[in-house]
Amino acid sequence: MTAYQPADFAIPSGFQHYAGDNAEDYLGPFFYRVQEDEGGEMFLEGAFRVKAHHCNMGGSTHGGVLMSFADYCLCMPVFLHHSPGVVTVSCNSEFIGSSCEGDLIMGRAELTRQGKSLAFTRCTLSVDDRPVLTASGVIKLLEPR
Amino acid sequence: MTAYQPADFAIPSGFQHYAGDNAEDYLGPFFYRVQEDEGGEMFLEGAFRVKAHHCNMGGSTHGGVLMSFADYCLCMPVFLHHSPGVVTVSCNSEFIGSSCEGDLIMGRAELTRQGKSLAFTRCTLSVDDRPVLTASGVIKLLEPR
Amino acid sequence: MTAYQPADFAIPSGFQHYAGDNAEDYLGPFFYRVQEDEGGEMFLEGAFRVKAHHCNMGGSTHGGVLMSFADYCLCMPVFLHHSPGVVTVSCNSEFIGSSCEGDLIMGRAELTRQGKSLAFTRCTLSVDDRPVLTASGVIKLLEPR
Amino acid sequence: MTAYQPADFAIPSGFQHYAGDNAEDYLGPFFYRVQEDEGGEMFLEGAFRVKAHHCNMGGSTHGGVLMSFADYCLCMPVFLHHSPGVVTVSCNSEFIGSSCEGDLIMGRAELTRQGKSLAFTRCTLSVDDRPVLTASGVIKLLEPR
Repeated sequence: MTAYQPADFAIPSGFQHYAGDNAEDYLGPFFYRVQEDEGGEMFLEGAFRVKAHHCNMGGSTHGGVLMSFADYCLCMPVFLHHSPGVVTVSCNSEFIGSSCEGDLIMGRAELTRQGKSLAFTRCTLSVDDRPVLTASGVIKLLEPR
Repeated sequence: MTAYQPADFAIPSGFQHYAGDNAEDYLGPFFYRVQEDEGGEMFLEGAFRVKAHHCNMGGSTHGGVLMSFADYCLCMPVFLHHSPGVVTVSCNSEFIGSSCEGDLIMGRAELTRQGKSLAFTRCTLSVDDRPVLTASGVIKLLEPR
Repeated sequence: MTAYQPADFAIPSGFQHYAGDNAEDYLGPFFYRVQEDEGGEMFLEGAFRVKAHHCNMGGSTHGGVLMSFADYCLCMPVFLHHSPGVVTVSCNSEFIGSSCEGDLIMGRAELTRQGKSLAFTRCTLSVDDRPVLTASGVIKLLEPR
Repeated sequence: MTAYQPADFAIPSGFQHYAGDNAEDYLGPFFYRVQEDEGGEMFLEGAFRVKAHHCNMGGSTHGGVLMSFADYCLCMPVFLHHSPGVVTVSCNSEFIGSSCEGDLIMGRAELTRQGKSLAFTRCTLSVDDRPVLTASGVIKLLEPR
C-alpha cells in the first residue's frame, strides 16, 4: 500500500490520496479534497496529472483513463460517508473535450440523491475550467458485514 | 511501440494485438479477433487477462479497467473499417458481475448502426460465459486528413 | 382501467395488454408476449403501433414515445416475476433509426442480470427487423409491503 | 398546430410554448424560457404540469413522461440556436425522486459542449427544488437543406 504525495504530481495543496486501492494508483494516482461552494454546499473535488502512458496514439488522454478518474470522482462523495464500501452500478460518460500529457485534470462531483441502498452522483472533469468529460453514476452502498 | 503476444497472457490463439496505443497497452493489453456467428454475421471478440494491478481493494477487477476494455471493444468494430480513426462520443456501462485476478475476460461487440459520421455499438464482457459488464457506445468517425 | 385488444391496433396475435397503468395506455398502448429463442432462453417481446399523435414535427416517432416503450420493454421481464412491483433506476437510450406513423415497432428485451434488489435489462426496438433504438436499464425490485 | 397558454396549466408567467410538434403537446404540453444565472450564463428552463393521465399505477409521474420532458429540455438549448433542427442521438436518465398529479416539474438545462455537428447537454428536473430526474444528452445538429 503506497501513499502518494500530491506535490510529486504537481497537484495543488490541500488534496489527499486514499491509500489502499492498487488499481486506482496504477490507473492514476488520483487525489481528492472536500470543498464548499458559494451556497455552503459541500462537493468533492478530484485531481489527476496526465502522464505519457495515459495517452492514446493521437496524444490525447485515453478514454478509459478518463472514465477511471470519473468513476473515482463519482464514488468518493458516497464512500467518504459510508465506511462499509460502495460499488458502481452504472457509469455513463460523454467525451466533450480533449486533454493531453502534462494536463492537470480536475473533477467536480455532486451527490444528486442519497438513498438507503443507492446513491446518485454526477461529475464534470475539466482542464483549466474547460470541460473534457461529463459523467453520471448509480452507486450501491454495501451493507456492513 | 510494443507488439504483445497473446500466448504471454494465456489468451486463446487467433487473437491479435493492435500495436500503437501506449495507454491501451498500459491499461491492458487488450487483444481482438473477428468472428462469425451462426447466422453468418461478423462480430468482434476482445480478450483481456486480469492481473493483480488491475484489481481494487476488494480484489475485484477495477471498474475503470473494465470500462477501458469495454471502450476498446466498442471502438474496434468501427475502427477496423475506418482507417482515419475514431473517437468515443459516449460510453454507458452497467456493472453486472464481478471478476478477479487471473480471469480471462472476453468481450463480444456488435455494431448496431453504422452511419456516415456516427456509429453505434454494444458489447458484453464475460468470464466463462458469465456476463460481468454491458456497455453501449456512440462512436464518431474521424474525417480523412 | 381499460383492456386494449391487440387486434384493434393491428398487433400480431399472441400479444397481451397489461391493464392498470393509465399513463402507459396514454403513451401507447403497449403489448407484450413471452417468447423462447432458438437456444431455449425466454425473452420478452413488446409491440406498439405508431399513431399520428406519436410523431414529431418531422413526421418521425417522437423520442419520448420511443423511450416510454423502451422503459416498458426493460421493466416487463422483471415485473412479470416480481409481483410487488418494480421501478426504473436508470434508462439509457441510443436513437439509431427512424420510424413513422403506421409502423409496428417491436421490442426485444433480455434480462442480463437478476439480483436480489436490482435487475439489469437491455432491449432493442425494431421496425421490420431494422433497429430504431437500443436501451439499457437498471431496475429496482420493490419490497413486498 | 395548437398554441397552448402557460396560464391554462398554472405555469409561471414568462414561459412560452413552441407550437408545431404534436407529439410534444400530446406528451406534455411543455413550456420553456431562457434565463440568466448569477454568473451571467444563459440556461434553459422548462416547465410541465403533471395531469392524471401522466401517472402510473402507483400514482407517480410515469418514467416515459419524465424522459419525454427531459428530452425536450436537452434539445431546446441547441434547437433555439440552430433553425435547421436537431435530433437526439442518445439520452441517459436517472430517476432520483418521485412526483405526482398536480406537481409543477421544472427543468434546468445546460449546454456543456457545442460542436459543429454534435452538442452535449445535461438537465435536472425538479419539483419545488427537489430533484426527480437527471439526464444527459448527445444532440445532433441537422444540416440546412
